Amino acid sequence: MQKETLRYRLLEAQLDLARRQERAVILLLTGHAATHKGAVVNRLNHWLENRHTEVHALGPSSEEQSRPYWWRYWRRVPECGRVGIFIHGWYGDALFARAERRLSPGAFQDRLAEIRAFEAALAAEGVVLLKLWSDIGRREQRRHLVELQQDPATAWQAGVSEWQRHGQHAAIEALGRRLRDDTEAPHAPWQRLPFREPGEQLFRVGRALLNTLESPPAPPETALGDLPEEAAGVPSLGRGEAPAPLNKTAYRERLARAQARLALNARELARRRIPVVVAFEGHDAAGKGGSIHRVTAALDARQYRVHRIAAPSDEERLRPWAWRFWRRLPADGRIALFDRSWYGRVLVERVEGLAREAQWQRAFGEITQFEQQLLAHGGVLIKLFLAIDKDEQLRRFEARAATPHKRHKLTDEDWRNRERWDDYRGAIDEMFARTHLPGAEWTLVACDDKRRARLAVLEAVNERLEARLSSAG
Amino acid sequence: MQKETLRYRLLEAQLDLARRQERAVILLLTGHAATHKGAVVNRLNHWLENRHTEVHALGPSSEEQSRPYWWRYWRRVPECGRVGIFIHGWYGDALFARAERRLSPGAFQDRLAEIRAFEAALAAEGVVLLKLWSDIGRREQRRHLVELQQDPATAWQAGVSEWQRHGQHAAIEALGRRLRDDTEAPHAPWQRLPFREPGEQLFRVGRALLNTLESPPAPPETALGDLPEEAAGVPSLGRGEAPAPLNKTAYRERLARAQARLALNARELARRRIPVVVAFEGHDAAGKGGSIHRVTAALDARQYRVHRIAAPSDEERLRPWAWRFWRRLPADGRIALFDRSWYGRVLVERVEGLAREAQWQRAFGEITQFEQQLLAHGGVLIKLFLAIDKDEQLRRFEARAATPHKRHKLTDEDWRNRERWDDYRGAIDEMFARTHLPGAEWTLVACDDKRRARLAVLEAVNERLEARLSSAG
Repeated sequence: MQKETLRYRLLEAQLDLARRQERAVILLLTGHAATHKGAVVNRLNHWLENRHTEVHALGPSSEEQSRPYWWRYWRRVPECGRVGIFIHGWYGDALFARAERRLSPGAFQDRLAEIRAFEAALAAEGVVLLKLWSDIGRREQRRHLVELQQDPATAWQAGVSEWQRHGQHAAIEALGRRLRDDTEAPHAPWQRLPFREPGEQLFRVGRALLNTLESPPAPPETALGDLPEEAAGVPSLGRGEAPAPLNKTAYRERLARAQARLALNARELARRRIPVVVAFEGHDAAGKGGSIHRVTAALDARQYRVHRIAAPSDEERLRPWAWRFWRRLPADGRIALFDRSWYGRVLVERVEGLAREAQWQRAFGEITQFEQQLLAHGGVLIKLFLAIDKDEQLRRFEARAATPHKRHKLTDEDWRNRERWDDYRGAIDEMFARTHLPGAEWTLVACDDKRRARLAVLEAVNERLEARLSSAG
Repeated sequence: MQKETLRYRLLEAQLDLARRQERAVILLLTGHAATHKGAVVNRLNHWLENRHTEVHALGPSSEEQSRPYWWRYWRRVPECGRVGIFIHGWYGDALFARAERRLSPGAFQDRLAEIRAFEAALAAEGVVLLKLWSDIGRREQRRHLVELQQDPATAWQAGVSEWQRHGQHAAIEALGRRLRDDTEAPHAPWQRLPFREPGEQLFRVGRALLNTLESPPAPPETALGDLPEEAAGVPSLGRGEAPAPLNKTAYRERLARAQARLALNARELARRRIPVVVAFEGHDAAGKGGSIHRVTAALDARQYRVHRIAAPSDEERLRPWAWRFWRRLPADGRIALFDRSWYGRVLVERVEGLAREAQWQRAFGEITQFEQQLLAHGGVLIKLFLAIDKDEQLRRFEARAATPHKRHKLTDEDWRNRERWDDYRGAIDEMFARTHLPGAEWTLVACDDKRRARLAVLEAVNERLEARLSSAG
């Protein structure tokens, strides 16, 4: 293929991508230093339509550092229709941190597993990945660095960090091999880019990108594993006994105590800069709103935010499903309360057929990844399911319908959901079985008595926070 | 009014706000220290529906510090339907910086003018503002601080900064008076909040907020000033002479030289962390895309981003008009190229009737504010208008229609716009007259010859960058 033909076809393919808005493309370039990476990206960027292209090559900001590691890449996932070019990106982080021994061998291995999960999540949602490894021999690298240094116009390209990486050539070579072997996948393939003059390299990169644009790889298949054996402690609907109602005086007194305890815990979390995420799920009319109010009443308004999860915005719709939860992750020391959450995918979206089977099945893995990231960052995750029985729900719906200032809380959708009670029940039990994991345990709160339910919510939150606060770190 | 009645009506009014999604509300609370501000906001937040409320009280992040000052508040403007509560906010910044002499009297005065402009811009776009000043006498403040200190549970509320502000009580009192006098407006009124026990203060805040929600003030009227006297240097369409065409060899050589110069300039801008914004406006088919390519070809892809301004997303539609340009401002040392820009409001939106007259008239002031902020932050602003004459446009449209791989660039809209050539001409000339200001000058580029046009664009960009680089700072 001629250079001009390649360039023309690339542009056509990119414009088609932008018109359809069905996929995004990520081109990631990493590998050895002093291999023309910058020059190649610059020229490629000139070939492409720059209104639909973005380049990411910056170190983390303070907002990024105060959130789970992957937040910085999730926020940069390009919209459908766009091409995102990453120089080093998540591979550079892993590679150089390990080469400089800022990452232990075990942590490096864990990071590779996270990379696989991240890329699979993107690929499954229409992000096409292409990863290029820039090769160069040690002696050739040295020769090239010396050359760069001798020309005043290019001397800045042979700085301390390039020479340092030259010194680590053998380590980077070995780590690169492991990294590529471990993260090779049909939906996120590696290609090696030999060291040639920039024009030749550009041609190879362009051809690889064209190939990806014209025949994007199939998204990964997710095989949902068998349901885990019923483990001890996994909650299940309908097991709890209805507790005896609590009188108002006892309730008020216990509520005040629990809230005072929560206020202290929250202050200590802020001081230690520990982020907290609380997900409220549950049956319609179980009392999520009222419970959230009892929690926030104990908190400093400056510390928390309530996220109500409803239909996605159009900016959200153009990105992978999990993006809208990632963007809401709290900074260190802050508390995010989710009124409905990422579990909507395996509950309402599953039952109502709003997500395809492959989508909600895949969501179990994506949810686990998302939650593990928060935990790995030192955060606290609290998942509450507020349950009522079917008769109690009917009583509450009827009471709402009869009370003028509560009528707006009851919608046709509530009645529709109620008709599928048994389907929901199955989905809820499967959700418990698959996502009740260490550090991410569910608390099932029986809500037939509102007062006991609110106390139980506060109790669960306090217990989880205190468990975290009494641990090291 | 009873407390319970107030609370109920507040909630009703807030739910109505959320349902309609026509306005946002900002409640800002500032003033003296140790006046129960935190407690009042916490309780108010408990009264409100927290799914539609957000509280902002954090210091700036590194992403905020590396952008023009007002970026940090623009990004926090609540969506229509939501209530944003700010503790101190932009008033605290001005007040305490001046009290601690980090801001000169002149800079304080300038800041107040910026505040007026910011609030007017928000109010004109459906954001309702309510500003509360917390009063307390000096002796009473001292007594209260001592009280707080004696109780271990509240001692943290009487820290170093509170005592420091107590020491500055007289200065804060005097500055507060000036600040309120200077920023009082029907669309952004001040109310003073006397020091009372928190419940009583909450009641007053709640009543003020209810009043604002139930009878929002009218947005400010914008009187568009007379067109400025024709000043020297203001560009005007149709004045330039058509330049002689340039042969290819001379073009290539001059292009290479201009791009090399730009590459050097850009590197120096990055080193000195100076942000750059380039706005490309012009007639359809004048060659904006090609010119942008000739600029970016000289730049490091890691340093710039091209923003193509088309229809707003729904997240953008729920916020004041200028929000979508603020969110795209580059960080220090980076370059943002706008393919069409905020001038769309006074060009296509004006001519096609997409913006009401009051909106596009107001936009002149808002645009000036926006641009001045970038300049005040030390940035460079380059505004280019790429012009062709009507016959040349027709030739290019016909050529596009006849070339398969260019046909997608020509739309029905282009033909429609062409029919209103004279209306556009009037709008363009008024835009020049009103927005050709020091530091924000327009460069009119005659584009009938493509080669000369591209060189002229590069020349204009280089000149502006070099003027900035040769200045101090």
